[in-house]
Amino acid sequence: MKKYYIAIDIGATNTKFGLLKMPGRIVSKKTIKTTDYKNPQEFSLISRNIIYSFLKDRKITKNSVVGIGIGAPGPIDNQKGLVHYFVNIPGWKEVPIRRMLMKKVKLPVFIDNDVNVMTLGEYKFGAGKGSKDIVGITLGSGVGGGLILNGKLFYGANMAAGEIGHMPINVNGPACPCGGHACLEAYVGNKRIVSRAKSEMQGKKTLIKSIMREKNSRLSPKIIYEAAKRNDKIAKKILHDTGVYIGVGLTGIVNLLNPEKIVIGGGVSNAGRFIFKAIEKTVKNRAMKIHAKTVKIVKAKLGEDAGLMGCLALVEEGLKQK
Amino acid sequence: MKKYYIAIDIGATNTKFGLLKMPGRIVSKKTIKTTDYKNPQEFSLISRNIIYSFLKDRKITKNSVVGIGIGAPGPIDNQKGLVHYFVNIPGWKEVPIRRMLMKKVKLPVFIDNDVNVMTLGEYKFGAGKGSKDIVGITLGSGVGGGLILNGKLFYGANMAAGEIGHMPINVNGPACPCGGHACLEAYVGNKRIVSRAKSEMQGKKTLIKSIMREKNSRLSPKIIYEAAKRNDKIAKKILHDTGVYIGVGLTGIVNLLNPEKIVIGGGVSNAGRFIFKAIEKTVKNRAMKIHAKTVKIVKAKLGEDAGLMGCLALVEEGLKQK
Repeated sequence: MKKYYIAIDIGATNTKFGLLKMPGRIVSKKTIKTTDYKNPQEFSLISRNIIYSFLKDRKITKNSVVGIGIGAPGPIDNQKGLVHYFVNIPGWKEVPIRRMLMKKVKLPVFIDNDVNVMTLGEYKFGAGKGSKDIVGITLGSGVGGGLILNGKLFYGANMAAGEIGHMPINVNGPACPCGGHACLEAYVGNKRIVSRAKSEMQGKKTLIKSIMREKNSRLSPKIIYEAAKRNDKIAKKILHDTGVYIGVGLTGIVNLLNPEKIVIGGGVSNAGRFIFKAIEKTVKNRAMKIHAKTVKIVKAKLGEDAGLMGCLALVEEGLKQK
Repeated sequence: MKKYYIAIDIGATNTKFGLLKMPGRIVSKKTIKTTDYKNPQEFSLISRNIIYSFLKDRKITKNSVVGIGIGAPGPIDNQKGLVHYFVNIPGWKEVPIRRMLMKKVKLPVFIDNDVNVMTLGEYKFGAGKGSKDIVGITLGSGVGGGLILNGKLFYGANMAAGEIGHMPINVNGPACPCGGHACLEAYVGNKRIVSRAKSEMQGKKTLIKSIMREKNSRLSPKIIYEAAKRNDKIAKKILHDTGVYIGVGLTGIVNLLNPEKIVIGGGVSNAGRFIFKAIEKTVKNRAMKIHAKTVKIVKAKLGEDAGLMGCLALVEEGLKQK
């Protein structure tokens, strides 16, 4: 009986491989550096080898594998199984990765962008379980988004839906590399948090500075969070303001889509209660009553395995559509 | 063979009844004042009489009627066929209008809010034809919205999706009666257009003032549009600014949903090119490239009959779901 799934979570730094079973259980796992492969050909070869070693270690035949799911950091044509390009990994341009990998491994292959995969994982196995309309958002260098509408990933006309980070939250505001103005990402992306912190800190006493010295580290959202935990006012204000900006962006989405849940993941979301409280308060105060009452804003649950578990869900969903 | 449809378009001022045939052809039409009925009971009775007179005039039996579609100005539970309330019509509170009318006329009844019905009409028969993901927006005293996603009306968790008018376009901005701040409606609803015009006009020479005297009329978007057509600078600026605000709101929706088309209807949309140009330019300049390239921003096509034709589509869709 087919009951195993292969998951490949391609990130800018690491690429994770997993052998999984329903419901979302990771049986084997292997992580390599994304620089370990120089191009799609090498990726396919390495993937095949790792998949075969998974099967050998567990004494499983390929007949018991349902399929391969891939999450990857870039715009993807999930119908054609095509990687348009990766934002932070050179050497990938219009790569028919599904076809390449199917040839090598002879298993069904499904691919989608990492935020969609994370959202799907949280929907099936994590914080989004049990809701039919959820919004997934990842906070980090960039701000990504995925939409589950009526129980399915929503893609839009060019499979480019979900760009929550590029919804403007002001009429006028900082230019964003996407070409827009006042995009949410231009207020709450890691870089902007750091640069806002720098100007807030100027000439003031704050634990942020001592923690930087202590850890011999550059300013980062993580350092700001450390300072906030130790009750530093300036750090708390920076995180609070970040939460308000995110809350304004989410208010628009809440009134537009009337979702049941918003699942927030990614590095900055670890700044826990400081950001979450401000997000929740902003949405509860500003969204329309019925919308605000319904929506639950929750932290992603699956942590660093969200990608792998999302890949499993992607295979399941993909086979259903067929 | 069943081939006729009954459409009822309830508005704050007028209620329109139609007998229609596919594809969206209006065979008979009758308009009454919404004040002609004082409550849901009277509405049901009048509706039955008008429906029967339609059938009699055309020598049609009830057997050839597919069903009744109703569009109405308020939050509606379309699954239960329940009117929660009407914003501008007293006497309707949690009214099970589907059940009441079915009892009176013995035909399947489907009901939805007017913006959804308009959007569905434009999708099936008007400017939205041929696209699977469209956003409908109506400009008037309020700013309403409807979403067709994957070829179907999207409702969200409480059937309250589509509140485009209450998406914030600024972090800080005017309070909105909905409880929010800086909602799109608080910038481009009729009242706001008029009050912005008043302050722009102060102490300045503008054709707006002469047209108001000429027509012995109060200031309204229509008057401003008249002045713009006669090349009045201030009028053109007011409409341009309105278009920019709408464009910022739509940029967020375009990046989030990646729709194929945005269909704009309602009174203010008649201010044609002055507003449209600014909307288009703003979205083309600010939305992400792939999203901006794809989306077409078009004027609603069905005019005052959009409601009736949407009701026909509502019956069709409703029967499909069954």
